[in-house]
Amino acid sequence: MKPFCFADGKIIDTQTASIHPMDLGLIRGYGIFDFFRTVNHQGLFLEDYLDRFTASAEKTFLPLDYSREELRQIIGQLIEKNDLEQGGLRMVLSGGVSDNHFSPADGKLFIFAESLIFPSEEKYEKGVKLLTLEYVRPIADIKTTNYALAVWHSAQWKKQGAEDVLYHMNGFISESSRSNFFIVKDGELITPSEHILLGITRKNLIKIAGQVTIRPISLQEVWEADEAFICSTTKVLLPVTQIDDRTIGNGKPGPISVNLLEKFKELEKELCY
Amino acid sequence: MKPFCFADGKIIDTQTASIHPMDLGLIRGYGIFDFFRTVNHQGLFLEDYLDRFTASAEKTFLPLDYSREELRQIIGQLIEKNDLEQGGLRMVLSGGVSDNHFSPADGKLFIFAESLIFPSEEKYEKGVKLLTLEYVRPIADIKTTNYALAVWHSAQWKKQGAEDVLYHMNGFISESSRSNFFIVKDGELITPSEHILLGITRKNLIKIAGQVTIRPISLQEVWEADEAFICSTTKVLLPVTQIDDRTIGNGKPGPISVNLLEKFKELEKELCY
Repeated sequence: MKPFCFADGKIIDTQTASIHPMDLGLIRGYGIFDFFRTVNHQGLFLEDYLDRFTASAEKTFLPLDYSREELRQIIGQLIEKNDLEQGGLRMVLSGGVSDNHFSPADGKLFIFAESLIFPSEEKYEKGVKLLTLEYVRPIADIKTTNYALAVWHSAQWKKQGAEDVLYHMNGFISESSRSNFFIVKDGELITPSEHILLGITRKNLIKIAGQVTIRPISLQEVWEADEAFICSTTKVLLPVTQIDDRTIGNGKPGPISVNLLEKFKELEKELCY
Repeated sequence: MKPFCFADGKIIDTQTASIHPMDLGLIRGYGIFDFFRTVNHQGLFLEDYLDRFTASAEKTFLPLDYSREELRQIIGQLIEKNDLEQGGLRMVLSGGVSDNHFSPADGKLFIFAESLIFPSEEKYEKGVKLLTLEYVRPIADIKTTNYALAVWHSAQWKKQGAEDVLYHMNGFISESSRSNFFIVKDGELITPSEHILLGITRKNLIKIAGQVTIRPISLQEVWEADEAFICSTTKVLLPVTQIDDRTIGNGKPGPISVNLLEKFKELEKELCY
C-alpha cells in the first residue's frame, strides 16, 4: 500500500486508516468497491470506473456523499501525493454501522493507492489454467466485496497450478472470480451476456475488437473453442490454455487473443501519453 | 452496542475499536463470526458456539490465536463488565490484511456485547411470512460473514411484509437467511440436511424434540406441510404461517411448534438459573 489514502473525508497516512469493526462491511460482508490503474499518472478509463462505482452504490442502497468532480479531485491528489505513475487505486464504500446490524446504513468511503504487479511474462506467453466451479455470483453486474467463496477456494486452485476458477451453472459459464471470460471460435469472439460483472476491460476490449458476439456460452462450447482468455484491470488480457485437465485449442495463446492485447496496449499509450 | 468490547488482545471501550479497512474482512467480505445469547449472565450453549466458532476458523484457514479457556475468560469478563444479564455476544474473526489483497491472512478477533430484541409477541402468536429466493449459501455449514445477498434483498422482503427469505435450489429448500427451517407433516418433524448452517438452536431443538427426520425437503413438501417454523439464536423458534402468497397449514402456529418452543424455554431456565 502507498503512504497516502483518503479516509474520513481527508487524505491521511494509509497506516492510520480505520473503520469500526461493527460496520456491515465486516460483519455482513456488505460493501462495494472498484479498482482502476494509473498509467503515466493518469487513471486509465477513469470515467468508466466512476460510472460503475456510482452504479454499484445506487444498486446497493449505499449513499455516496461525494460528487463526481469531488471524486476526480481526491483521486488526482492521491496520484500526486503518492507519485503513482503506474499503480492502482481502490475505492471502497462500506455498508455502514447499522442499528439492527443488518440493514444497509451510511457507509464510509476509502480510497487506497497501491502498487500493481502484473502476471509474469511466462503466463502471457504460455497461457494459464482455470478450474471449473459451479457457482453464480449474486448481484454479479456490480462490484460488491462478496469474494468469500473465491478467497476460500483459492487455496485449492493454487495447489492445482491454476490461475483462477471459471464459474458455471446449469451447463453455462459466466466469468472467472475476478475476470471476464472470452472464447474465440472460427474467428468469432464470443463473451457471456449473463451473471457477469460489467467489466471495464471487457467493455474496452469489445470496443477495440469491433465485432464481439455477446450471448450465453455453454461449457461444451468452451471445450471446443480455438482460443480463450480472461480479462481484468490487473491482468488486461491473459490467454487461457487449459481448463481442468482439458487443453483449449492447440494449448498455446491464439493469434486473435495476442493481437487484441497488442491493440489494447496501443490504446493505453494513446490515452495516457 | 454495550460499552466494553474485546479488541487487539484486551478489553476496551467499544467506540474505540477499529480495524484497518484493507482487511480482507472488508475488501473481500472474508471473515467468520458467531453470536450467542446470555441468559442470567451466562452464555447459553456456550460450548456449542465455541465449537462452531473454532470449526469456522479452521475451515476458512484463519488462525484463532486464543485457546478455548482464554475465550471463556474473555467472555466472562465482557459479561461482567457490561453487566450483560440478558443480551448477545458477537465474536468476529476477520480475514486479515493480505499482501496480495486476496489470500487469507492473520485476522483480528473482536468480541462485542449487544442488547438483544426478540421479535414481537404478535409474531409468535400469528406466525410470520417468508419469501422464497433461489440461492444456496456457499460454505453454508460454517458461519461466514457472507450475507451480501440477504442484506441487499432485505429491502424487498420488508416491502412485502415478510420476515425473511427461504432459500431453495433445484426444487429443494435449505434455510432462511439467518435461521434454520423445519416443517411438521402428520406429526413428524422434518428439517433439511444439506446446504445449511449447522445451527446451535436447531441442534438443541432436535435434542429436545427427540425424534426429527433430517433429509432434503422439496418445495412441494413445504406447500403441503401442517406447520413450519424458523429457528435461530435471536428468534429461538418463530412459526411460519405464510410463504410467498401461500398459507402454511391452517395459517396459525401449530401445536407441535408451540410445544417445542415451550420446552426450549424450560431447558433455558434449567441451564441458566
